[in-house]
Amino acid sequence: MWLAILGTATNASTNANACSFKDLCPALANKTYFNYGGQGPLPTPALEAMTSSWKTIQERGPFTTAVWPFIEQETSRLRGALAALCGVAPHRIALTENVTSGCVLPLWGLPWSSSDELLISDCEHPGVVAACRELARREGLSIATLPVLELCRSTPQAQLETAVLDQLEQHLKGSTRLVVLSHLLWNTGSVMPIASVAERLQDHPRQPWLLVDAAQSMGSIPVEAAARAADIYAFTGHKWCCGPEGLGGVALSERLLEQAQPTLIGWRSLRQESAAGSCWHQDARRFEVATSCVPLMRGLLTSLELLEAEGDAASRLQSIRQRSGQLWEGLNKRGDVQTLLPEPPPAGLVSFVLTGQDSAAVVERLGKAGLWIRRLDDPDCLRACTHITTTPAEVEALLNAL
Amino acid sequence: MWLAILGTATNASTNANACSFKDLCPALANKTYFNYGGQGPLPTPALEAMTSSWKTIQERGPFTTAVWPFIEQETSRLRGALAALCGVAPHRIALTENVTSGCVLPLWGLPWSSSDELLISDCEHPGVVAACRELARREGLSIATLPVLELCRSTPQAQLETAVLDQLEQHLKGSTRLVVLSHLLWNTGSVMPIASVAERLQDHPRQPWLLVDAAQSMGSIPVEAAARAADIYAFTGHKWCCGPEGLGGVALSERLLEQAQPTLIGWRSLRQESAAGSCWHQDARRFEVATSCVPLMRGLLTSLELLEAEGDAASRLQSIRQRSGQLWEGLNKRGDVQTLLPEPPPAGLVSFVLTGQDSAAVVERLGKAGLWIRRLDDPDCLRACTHITTTPAEVEALLNAL
Repeated sequence: MWLAILGTATNASTNANACSFKDLCPALANKTYFNYGGQGPLPTPALEAMTSSWKTIQERGPFTTAVWPFIEQETSRLRGALAALCGVAPHRIALTENVTSGCVLPLWGLPWSSSDELLISDCEHPGVVAACRELARREGLSIATLPVLELCRSTPQAQLETAVLDQLEQHLKGSTRLVVLSHLLWNTGSVMPIASVAERLQDHPRQPWLLVDAAQSMGSIPVEAAARAADIYAFTGHKWCCGPEGLGGVALSERLLEQAQPTLIGWRSLRQESAAGSCWHQDARRFEVATSCVPLMRGLLTSLELLEAEGDAASRLQSIRQRSGQLWEGLNKRGDVQTLLPEPPPAGLVSFVLTGQDSAAVVERLGKAGLWIRRLDDPDCLRACTHITTTPAEVEALLNAL
Repeated sequence: MWLAILGTATNASTNANACSFKDLCPALANKTYFNYGGQGPLPTPALEAMTSSWKTIQERGPFTTAVWPFIEQETSRLRGALAALCGVAPHRIALTENVTSGCVLPLWGLPWSSSDELLISDCEHPGVVAACRELARREGLSIATLPVLELCRSTPQAQLETAVLDQLEQHLKGSTRLVVLSHLLWNTGSVMPIASVAERLQDHPRQPWLLVDAAQSMGSIPVEAAARAADIYAFTGHKWCCGPEGLGGVALSERLLEQAQPTLIGWRSLRQESAAGSCWHQDARRFEVATSCVPLMRGLLTSLELLEAEGDAASRLQSIRQRSGQLWEGLNKRGDVQTLLPEPPPAGLVSFVLTGQDSAAVVERLGKAGLWIRRLDDPDCLRACTHITTTPAEVEALLNAL
């Protein structure tokens, strides 16, 4: 499935026009934007939907039995939509404030033993790594590194799945209890073979849990196979899904729901919210906490619907890859640029090094011209993202400005 | 200070008119609302301020160096405003999604020993109690109960401080390591002498930490003395402060900031957000996590400014107590009502039992008539809250409807 998805993009027809989604995004009207992996633009209908949701809550509530059905409906609809995107049943989805909460909260209540090892890829986000280090310190676990960065830089996509699985094989130990691997690496932009990794871990005597940071994958590539296979598949609505900041979710495996106790516990974690002695919810709601911002749900739902109207995840990925491929090709025509990947990217992240130029200074210079890309620390490089809203002319403008 | 504040209310002049704040709240236009302790109404200018904040973020960002100063400004302003309300320096304030996060997150990283005891009042919210139970289970701590419910029901306010301190004295042990006590009890509506309790705990050989659930106090009574004295003073913006749901904060003591490690760790917890090996922030930001909804900050700030325009916290409490006193008096004129408190309430929470009536049925019946109060489980009772927006006519309407 993973390779099949990557394959389809090469057959895509050229789409020279911006999609109509773009016209709905004020953020894209006054700038040339390539930071979708940092935060996506919020379409105006999503903002209007949130305002409308707030008005409904005030009209019926805010705290009345007349408003509960509305809040329940908003919550169920979003949970159902995210479950459908992940290809899992809704009871496996917990709503969270951000990716970090989805990644980290389920970890703290797992039954660790002091001999356990966490195997963490060398391309994970610093926040998740720092959280794992603190978990390891407190529980007396050890940490090992799964090196994938250099593989991504040197291996063509057709061989990357095998290369990553080989690397995993070399680093799995009898004590490995958790593997941490992003679905779409935030630095190189490579897609990791999550479903195959999960399959391999099932054959390990201790069946290590698989934690997947899906910050870059959700909304940019099809995620079902990976989300179904991972134990923790944590994502946010505010990047590639173009929803509001402050709302995300996590898909959890059935075994994780059986094994993990909640840690940040509030009334939403409890089956009977008014009884401290209540059991947790049996489903993923045990990892939800307390009051959060309900109107954001309608905002994210609206953005997801608008994206879906532009095509399904596979066809949107084709558009994304047309533009990232165009950028990658343009960069590789220059003598002073090194792209991190040896081939056009499998998704929308294009990372590269401009030889002899300070990357922070480049970001600042482009920003003054209204073109927005970002700098990454590790490896030190520049990253430009293309979404379905990106036009060929924007890519040309970036190439000219660099 | 605590008794002085309670004393001033008796001298307040009668204010028969609704304040202008009320006219700004659509939630109060079509109903008679007494559930401020559940969630406060959102004034229209706060909603407009959030919409405007979102537009600014889209115009300058959403992820550009041009938007960071705006986000930093919004964050600093809210942190400063909450610090001023708490009477503490801004570095002691962490922004959170809700009260639970503020209560529970700092607990998990404290240096517990397996002989430690948690002393929890019998009037705490089930969510916080459930979180403490899970903490105790995992760390091998014991739990004891500090009984204050019956004290509140039988003791006049002038003697309550002494009675609570006596009760504390009887329940403190050499092993007590944490005391959990709300500032304004969510069930009885009594104010707890937090500063005096904190002072007493300083004399204890182990100087137990003091965790204060400030869900009902912030925005309804002056909180400086308590917030300065507690180790963890956790509050939300969406109840008495009338801000949006999904944003709150916690004031942390200097010693807690030295002793507690963060548990839910993300890029906002780290001093250098791009380095997993980075130290935590030295200040309260170590308990902040990752992306949250920035526009909510402007909403809460706007609500706080609108409330402040109606008078300072002490004078607003006078208005609140006039109406809660009116309700308490009216209820006590009836033969079939038992108020939980033996005197007019010290703040805006009025809890009572209607003899011979099913409390859930009463809530439903009143709701159909557009009057909104709520039911509590423990003790089984009804609760009506008065805010500065409550009019004498609304209180009369409730008394008539009961």
